[in-house]
Amino acid sequence: MRSIVQVTFVWQEQRGGRREQRQEQVITNGDKTILGLAREQDIKIDATCGGRGRCGRCKVIVHGPANDISKSEEQLLTKEELTGGVRLACYVRPQGNVRIEIPTSRTELVQILTEGSEQAVPVEPDITKEYLVVDKPELETPAGDRERLLAALEQAGHVDSSIPLGVMADLPEVLRKGNHQVTVTRWHNRIVAIESGDTTDELFGLAVDIGTTTVVGGLIDLHQGKELAVAARLNGQAAYGADVISRVEYASNGTSQLRRLQQAVIDTLNGIVAELEDKTGIAASKIHRVVLVGNTCMQHLALGVSPTYIARSPYTPAFSHRIDVMATQLGLAVHPEAVVTFLPNVAGFVGADTVGVVLATGLAERSSRVVMIDIGTNGELVMSYEGKMVSCSTAAGPAFEGAQISCGMRAGEGAIEFVEIGDDIESVVIGGTPPRGICGSGLIDMVAELLRVGIVDETGRLQDAAELEGLAQSLTERIRAGEAGNEFVVAWAAETADGNDLVLTQRDIRELQLAKGAIRAGTKILQKILDIKDEDIDELLLAGAFGNYIRKESAMQMGLLPCIPLERIRSVGNAARVGARQCLISETSLKEASRLALEIDYVELSGRADFQEAFMDAMLFTPGTVSVQDSTEINKKVPRDQAV
Amino acid sequence: MRSIVQVTFVWQEQRGGRREQRQEQVITNGDKTILGLAREQDIKIDATCGGRGRCGRCKVIVHGPANDISKSEEQLLTKEELTGGVRLACYVRPQGNVRIEIPTSRTELVQILTEGSEQAVPVEPDITKEYLVVDKPELETPAGDRERLLAALEQAGHVDSSIPLGVMADLPEVLRKGNHQVTVTRWHNRIVAIESGDTTDELFGLAVDIGTTTVVGGLIDLHQGKELAVAARLNGQAAYGADVISRVEYASNGTSQLRRLQQAVIDTLNGIVAELEDKTGIAASKIHRVVLVGNTCMQHLALGVSPTYIARSPYTPAFSHRIDVMATQLGLAVHPEAVVTFLPNVAGFVGADTVGVVLATGLAERSSRVVMIDIGTNGELVMSYEGKMVSCSTAAGPAFEGAQISCGMRAGEGAIEFVEIGDDIESVVIGGTPPRGICGSGLIDMVAELLRVGIVDETGRLQDAAELEGLAQSLTERIRAGEAGNEFVVAWAAETADGNDLVLTQRDIRELQLAKGAIRAGTKILQKILDIKDEDIDELLLAGAFGNYIRKESAMQMGLLPCIPLERIRSVGNAARVGARQCLISETSLKEASRLALEIDYVELSGRADFQEAFMDAMLFTPGTVSVQDSTEINKKVPRDQAV
Repeated sequence: MRSIVQVTFVWQEQRGGRREQRQEQVITNGDKTILGLAREQDIKIDATCGGRGRCGRCKVIVHGPANDISKSEEQLLTKEELTGGVRLACYVRPQGNVRIEIPTSRTELVQILTEGSEQAVPVEPDITKEYLVVDKPELETPAGDRERLLAALEQAGHVDSSIPLGVMADLPEVLRKGNHQVTVTRWHNRIVAIESGDTTDELFGLAVDIGTTTVVGGLIDLHQGKELAVAARLNGQAAYGADVISRVEYASNGTSQLRRLQQAVIDTLNGIVAELEDKTGIAASKIHRVVLVGNTCMQHLALGVSPTYIARSPYTPAFSHRIDVMATQLGLAVHPEAVVTFLPNVAGFVGADTVGVVLATGLAERSSRVVMIDIGTNGELVMSYEGKMVSCSTAAGPAFEGAQISCGMRAGEGAIEFVEIGDDIESVVIGGTPPRGICGSGLIDMVAELLRVGIVDETGRLQDAAELEGLAQSLTERIRAGEAGNEFVVAWAAETADGNDLVLTQRDIRELQLAKGAIRAGTKILQKILDIKDEDIDELLLAGAFGNYIRKESAMQMGLLPCIPLERIRSVGNAARVGARQCLISETSLKEASRLALEIDYVELSGRADFQEAFMDAMLFTPGTVSVQDSTEINKKVPRDQAV
Repeated sequence: MRSIVQVTFVWQEQRGGRREQRQEQVITNGDKTILGLAREQDIKIDATCGGRGRCGRCKVIVHGPANDISKSEEQLLTKEELTGGVRLACYVRPQGNVRIEIPTSRTELVQILTEGSEQAVPVEPDITKEYLVVDKPELETPAGDRERLLAALEQAGHVDSSIPLGVMADLPEVLRKGNHQVTVTRWHNRIVAIESGDTTDELFGLAVDIGTTTVVGGLIDLHQGKELAVAARLNGQAAYGADVISRVEYASNGTSQLRRLQQAVIDTLNGIVAELEDKTGIAASKIHRVVLVGNTCMQHLALGVSPTYIARSPYTPAFSHRIDVMATQLGLAVHPEAVVTFLPNVAGFVGADTVGVVLATGLAERSSRVVMIDIGTNGELVMSYEGKMVSCSTAAGPAFEGAQISCGMRAGEGAIEFVEIGDDIESVVIGGTPPRGICGSGLIDMVAELLRVGIVDETGRLQDAAELEGLAQSLTERIRAGEAGNEFVVAWAAETADGNDLVLTQRDIRELQLAKGAIRAGTKILQKILDIKDEDIDELLLAGAFGNYIRKESAMQMGLLPCIPLERIRSVGNAARVGARQCLISETSLKEASRLALEIDYVELSGRADFQEAFMDAMLFTPGTVSVQDSTEINKKVPRDQAV
């Protein structure tokens, strides 16, 4: 067992026009490279070669013990750099607590990076800026400002341009302020914006993932392709229901309810836009392009389109393909004529967020057998083999996000996120405070450990203390009779934030069984369709925040994930938003997204008898062939960012 | 001198779903045919051949003395019809007071008619309806409602259709309510509306003339091409200034002022829409197409685009070509996705209203030398000769609309609209009430008569009573000293509505001189450009309400109009709105409008030295070669519609 080390990343970021010192700490076991760790944390380190040790761009300054300098580093780094402690992040592995300094120039990336699947995306957004000199008006030529602009556009080779009303309204002043020299922002033949003078050096976009629980947006420099800042908020719709189905039900009550849900998420988005403006000093009105992902229902609600029939058989959305609207139609507080694209959905319950993950992870191009599992408030699964992709959705999520679990909570301060059972319970609490509850990753750890030591059996039953021989009393005394079956005291009243025992009930375990059963059964159906056995799975990608924090052994131990060698499982982080960002900076990717949405087959599980069977089966806690692992593979930030 | 006769038209009109009896009276001298008279009053009588006595469609029943039955009528009418008093309106001339019954079937026209220029317009609007059966959703096919609708459209031959957000939002309910049988309204490749079931038998549009003073809208059946109802309102912007320039000034104060003016005219339009709904029983939400004319400034204000630079040299509008927007962008209370077209403008002061008049009168197709004068709040002039058209604008209007004249008022109840001087003043007052003021046509009559009897001389000076020999005392005693020069009592206190003398001042006459001078000078410049002498003018068209009511001899007497034989002068009524209606029912006309706007040359008078000279000249009251007319040519409705 390798020793646990703490890695502290230090770098600078552009905020509100000035550079700001940033710092983040990660606990790891020293197996991973610094580049790998940084990517998991979404900390940007440039690496043109994708971390293959060839480009020599991922330079960091290492303070503390690390592995020896490699041959490649000796070749790629200068003597000065080597003596100054500079290393390549793709080679260096910490051998004790280290401090990693990321040089400022290296934080400005042109590439879209996700763990394990670097997509080198050319920067070619579908909006462009162009500097134009427009003819001045003369007494003899009564042509309007708009017509002279159109003539200038035609001279520049852009025929049939359309100028929306909002742009035209600004035109007279913008033309005269710039002495008839202007910069136009074009989206195909539509003029999105017009600015006085030459502003071609600036071009900004917004990439957003509208999650059922959390909304995350990034401000992107569309010339460089790099993300300038990220902001996240809880989805304001949460007040109207925690999960997708309860929001659909609320929206189905009438137009005013639908409008309320739309306004809630637009308000959330506008909060994010304002925060990005604060962080970068770039006016929101300069955001001319927006790409959004989100599940199908979130997209409907954000567009103010009723999702009623998504929730009723045959689960039909109002739209599934890509939608382009103008910001002003949504009340989005960026440039009013900014083009807002909702990426295409596969089906009512496999949305653009899944398409984003597939795009960002390059799933379609892989020839290996890959399973992608995105556990958010819903659970979406995609299996891919030689270009054929099948997807399905399970209503799995809430248990993993703390809902429907008596002591459950979101992964915020006070949440137990990591549990090990030795002679007693050892747990890690987010923020290092007394525990207030248990979050998804903690719950999986907890139950996996209870299974391992026998306190919970394969059927999910919490044993009586009397049935357990050879267990330490510190553990058996935590078992007691509850309202329905036994319950297990995770933390005693003296240790908790509110002074009450923190308890896992038999019902909590049943909820977890239902959730994990649905996901595992969904995976099995997809495996069956593509005829892939557990052991043949070459790669298992865990998307979403949850996938980042889950302890893979625990998930396998309880049968949430198929049993495959640990190294085949990879967390790809918020790949949905990465997909959105990719579409924002590359028109090719945007088109690819539409192709993917059509290519990914959808399997409606509720229509299948074999799913019911698989589900009954998968509810059991049967790790089956889970191999004994010799690594603990702890991947955990201390402290973890709260509430995002 | 022919005797004056009264013609009473009686017909039925569709109002609010039921037929209503209508009646209108006209006083004439018996020179005109019934068809000609009806057209001047905008009373519809079908005439496919354009009144050339060939089609036999303009049947009316004549009660009272008329000219003899013609050979053509004997051929085109049946024996029963001839004995029943049926005549062809294009042949019959009244020879005493007559009552003209227009058969119901003849009031439903497919043609657009204006006096002297019948345009047979094919009914082919640019929006169409189509009944479609959409595939029902199935569990196996996750395609959204929108995608299945698009597939049905493609099957019907419409590729690349675009479905706006508003239509998509309604789609799930509309599809299911109609059991997936729907009617789509298309405008090119854009879907404007979707309705459950088969509604292809209904298709409605709105044609509007936004005048500076008055806004008139007509609800049009786009299958039949016929007008179902008309409503008119004063332009709500009047509170912010009577003329164009004062509104431009107000709007230039800032965005909120601009918005206020926009809202004012949109409110006016919505009032008209509501009235049309009341009158016809057809829901405003069924109006899927709108065509608007108006002067360039009115168009800017209705669109919320600043007209600031129209009023500053070089008088540049923000736009001049045709603009298409969606109703929802304006807040227009028709179908939210209805396409609203603002017809193209020629220049900052020659707007789409003028283009509408040119279109409706077929000016471009005429080989003769034609002058079109549209005197509204502004005065626009177009001269045409063998396809070449030149236009100009003069700030002539307010005096003719009662503004800037001490006793001036609009042509409403209590306005003196007709004046003759014999031994004393003889006048006709609108509504038959005691006079409250004098409207434009009355003012021209008044001054023309004062000129004729010598009370006003050619320089515009009101003579002293002592200078006038041989005039009746009843006239000379009306002349008295005023604040600046003499004044003339039009009506004594005892006769007026408010009990005060109604007085025409020397300053009033100066205002009229400025106004008529500008128009006459503008006409002269256009004549000079096309090298057309007064006597060579083949036709002079008077557009606008004012043109309908003006007494042509008076206008010539004072030199407002060039001196040409009376029969060459024709009133074409509100031809601007007829042009809008024409574009609404015919895509060919709509395209023609854009071509015309480019073809009509614009002459900026303020840039020309010869205009100043002509203007000085034209201010004099010099009828010049005005030939002595042997007809009084009175063309006057009793009572005249008020305030429209």
